[in-house]
Amino acid sequence: MQLLKDRIIKDGIVKEGNILKVDSFLNHQMDVVLFEEIGKELKRRFSDCQVNKILTIEASGIGIACMTAQQFCVPVVFAKKTKTKNIAGDVYTSKVESFTHGKVYDIIVSKDFLKPEDKVLIIDDFLAEGSALLGLAQLVEDAGAQLVGAAIVIEKGFQEGGARVREKGIRLESLAIIKSMDEKNGIIFK
Amino acid sequence: MQLLKDRIIKDGIVKEGNILKVDSFLNHQMDVVLFEEIGKELKRRFSDCQVNKILTIEASGIGIACMTAQQFCVPVVFAKKTKTKNIAGDVYTSKVESFTHGKVYDIIVSKDFLKPEDKVLIIDDFLAEGSALLGLAQLVEDAGAQLVGAAIVIEKGFQEGGARVREKGIRLESLAIIKSMDEKNGIIFK
Repeated sequence: MQLLKDRIIKDGIVKEGNILKVDSFLNHQMDVVLFEEIGKELKRRFSDCQVNKILTIEASGIGIACMTAQQFCVPVVFAKKTKTKNIAGDVYTSKVESFTHGKVYDIIVSKDFLKPEDKVLIIDDFLAEGSALLGLAQLVEDAGAQLVGAAIVIEKGFQEGGARVREKGIRLESLAIIKSMDEKNGIIFK
Repeated sequence: MQLLKDRIIKDGIVKEGNILKVDSFLNHQMDVVLFEEIGKELKRRFSDCQVNKILTIEASGIGIACMTAQQFCVPVVFAKKTKTKNIAGDVYTSKVESFTHGKVYDIIVSKDFLKPEDKVLIIDDFLAEGSALLGLAQLVEDAGAQLVGAAIVIEKGFQEGGARVREKGIRLESLAIIKSMDEKNGIIFK
């Protein structure tokens, strides 16, 4: 998606340790005009899938998921990272390893909001090692729902996530795939 | 906002301990069609304020904030609840007490995304004791930005938050204010 790639080149900052800071438009400050275009692009790519639910994970996936859900006219469900007092009853749960935060945590979704009849599109902002995405896919599988695919804004193509997800037979659409990046040469897309 | 109140009556579940579960449409599963109507209503109420930024807090405020920001054509900034490796440099920070989770945590916003020239509208899903909202207002004040007001989807009118916020001179618009609720008598709005 050229608009997105242009924006990453313009406003993305490459930091040591394979970190790409895009917090001026994607995951701290959020450019909803860009998000609307992302939503339209994802609607175009998954228009044949009868998506009836979008699944994401708190926190930075929520904005893109909502703006995309608007295009599909379907609800969003976001997986929560900790068990709160407000979620009673039965939940689906899986484990996710965060390399950014250096820890393993549980993600949960209430069983009320993932059902066998659901056709689910997973959305997240980043794909690196793929742990969050595979954790979300596990929730969909546990619910007996159909996973129609996964949409990622930025895939770090030099990390293992993309291969791990595709090996599982999951249809993966990444709007920008980074082939390589460093402070000297900048960002090169696939 | 009648559409919202009707939905709360239809799908909200009152639980012991002043808990109102609205996770089927507001803060776990999210009805983006409703969110779009909320956005339009908030645009109408704050149309005179030259809002150029919307500030919320992760996670459940983000969806409503994005759908509202779309109406204003302005970016959203969400305050983060923990310091991550990806936020380097200077941040504004304040403390928030969560009664739901029974703990005090820091919220942070990068100084890059709150500036003295900003006219900020704060958005959150719930107002109970007001701790999160006042924490966000503190960030705006610390940045030297102008706080034009705060918009809340559901205010628990029987708790102290609304009074605390209004006492500070903050313009507060709550789309549904609950006067009382219990399992026997249900939900009564102000």
